[in-house]
Amino acid sequence: MRVALDALGTDTAPGPEVAGALSALEHNEKLEVVLVGDERRIRSEIARHDPGELASRLHFVDAPYRIEPAEAPASAVRKHRDSSIVRGVRLQKEGDVDAFVSAGSTGAVMAASLILLRPLAGVDRPAIGTLLPTSKGATLMLDAGANVDCKPRHLYQFALLGQIYAQDLMGIAEPRVGLLNIGEEPEKGDERTVESFALLSREPRIGFIGNVEGRDIIGGECDVLVCDGFVGNVLLKFYESVAEFIVGLLQRETARSGTQLDVSGAFRVLDYAEYGGAPLLGVNGITIISHGSSTPRAIQNALGVAVRAVDSRMVEHMARELSRRSEEPLAG
Amino acid sequence: MRVALDALGTDTAPGPEVAGALSALEHNEKLEVVLVGDERRIRSEIARHDPGELASRLHFVDAPYRIEPAEAPASAVRKHRDSSIVRGVRLQKEGDVDAFVSAGSTGAVMAASLILLRPLAGVDRPAIGTLLPTSKGATLMLDAGANVDCKPRHLYQFALLGQIYAQDLMGIAEPRVGLLNIGEEPEKGDERTVESFALLSREPRIGFIGNVEGRDIIGGECDVLVCDGFVGNVLLKFYESVAEFIVGLLQRETARSGTQLDVSGAFRVLDYAEYGGAPLLGVNGITIISHGSSTPRAIQNALGVAVRAVDSRMVEHMARELSRRSEEPLAG
Repeated sequence: MRVALDALGTDTAPGPEVAGALSALEHNEKLEVVLVGDERRIRSEIARHDPGELASRLHFVDAPYRIEPAEAPASAVRKHRDSSIVRGVRLQKEGDVDAFVSAGSTGAVMAASLILLRPLAGVDRPAIGTLLPTSKGATLMLDAGANVDCKPRHLYQFALLGQIYAQDLMGIAEPRVGLLNIGEEPEKGDERTVESFALLSREPRIGFIGNVEGRDIIGGECDVLVCDGFVGNVLLKFYESVAEFIVGLLQRETARSGTQLDVSGAFRVLDYAEYGGAPLLGVNGITIISHGSSTPRAIQNALGVAVRAVDSRMVEHMARELSRRSEEPLAG
Repeated sequence: MRVALDALGTDTAPGPEVAGALSALEHNEKLEVVLVGDERRIRSEIARHDPGELASRLHFVDAPYRIEPAEAPASAVRKHRDSSIVRGVRLQKEGDVDAFVSAGSTGAVMAASLILLRPLAGVDRPAIGTLLPTSKGATLMLDAGANVDCKPRHLYQFALLGQIYAQDLMGIAEPRVGLLNIGEEPEKGDERTVESFALLSREPRIGFIGNVEGRDIIGGECDVLVCDGFVGNVLLKFYESVAEFIVGLLQRETARSGTQLDVSGAFRVLDYAEYGGAPLLGVNGITIISHGSSTPRAIQNALGVAVRAVDSRMVEHMARELSRRSEEPLAG
């Protein structure tokens, strides 16, 4: 299995990418990684690590242009064919690799994936899935920011995509799919959510458990949490910042009180590096998006997500389910 | 000054209400509290406290019906004129008290306030303001759940109401008003937010600082955070539950490690009892809504919020500003 990795993705690339790739290779003998970026800099970074025989499973594609997060995604993707993002996605389109991982501009990675890989039949708008740490493990929330102004049928599609991700990558045979809302009853919420509730309730093949409130997320009440990309993105960024804030508070408090308490254990649950990669769900391929501030472990884990998506044939599974469902008329 | 307090509000009423009222009376010699509820039970609860001379500033209105949170708010308010909520709001309407505080059904408190007190001229939909603890103190977020499917002109009104609350009750001469969004640039976000941004940018009398992302809330980037009631409610409930979850994690961790670290200090910032009451902003009167699980201190603080709103003549201030602004045409 070959996975392309954007080596111009993180804010300090290619350091975290090279270190993360080497760790991933060490843990998976069947994996080969194609580093896409500034080949000269990548090679000099690798030389610092003394990779030994791992080097035989590292490949290079020279694509020295980095699309900056400030660039308008769609036009940047059209203009910069020699960018690491466009080259990486194209490798997958042409069958040279099985998946692509990038910590670069989220907008550009999405745009390149939509343009080159195309959405699966039956998907209007691919969504970003992200794992939110909970008291019971993690909940896949989607959409985490790819789409705003979603319609009920989009939320329905997110539910379907999320359910398959949870089955194939989280190992949950019958995922509990919840709809983010401000009350439990079917009639609660804004118009979109009320209609989405009705749509999901009528679909026996989705394990829909009903509305899930903001207060129920952290307790792991559902495995898949469906929402519009606006509220999903607000929630995700808020969660990350609260976790960071609280860790800071605690560190000051432990320092002030002079105790030696190691709070890192308590916050493993809040550590995004454990999860590492957010899949773009609903495209005809495997695209994993990581934070610009990813550590080597986050990159390693993002590569792990890509490997599991390939191994489980997630995309085929999604295409199969979508074609079954698209035979039925859908309102919304 | 007289404030009516719903003595059938909290889940364990009237215990927290009586204890909270007595503490408030002790701290403010000019305050009188009218306890509205089951008079017999209130009196026997008071007897347990030995209130001494504080008793002379306690008054009673017997209104033994409790509107349950599960009841449909508007019809419950119309049907139960002898409920503590309807009687409490009516006392204010008739000029017998200056404000009303309740930890009962939020929907019923809102409905009674809208029906009896009426919205201020220029306000389409009153909003619930709530204080989110931040690293710098607190940010007033509105709307926290009174309205979903808001239009840009509603968000504009929320900004105006929030700005005045921040001036009058938070003591901030020039509040920084932010719009919750998923990016910093004016063109980011859903349709509603893009239009709201334009509306707020054109109003020189609002201290609009632009878009604020989910990650920027906790750092206290703005004093007033404007959003639709759907995302506001999700965010508020999520924040409360995360704070609770993390405190639990830490308590387990300190117990496991055998250290004696007192984490309560670090979490004062996350303690909602410090704030206690969420105002319903935009009605012609002062209605303060508290949690059903309020402690005596939360009730005391909610009474304190009511006192400050009365003292600062917040409602007159809002009415004055709204009449100035309503002379100008407003799109949205």
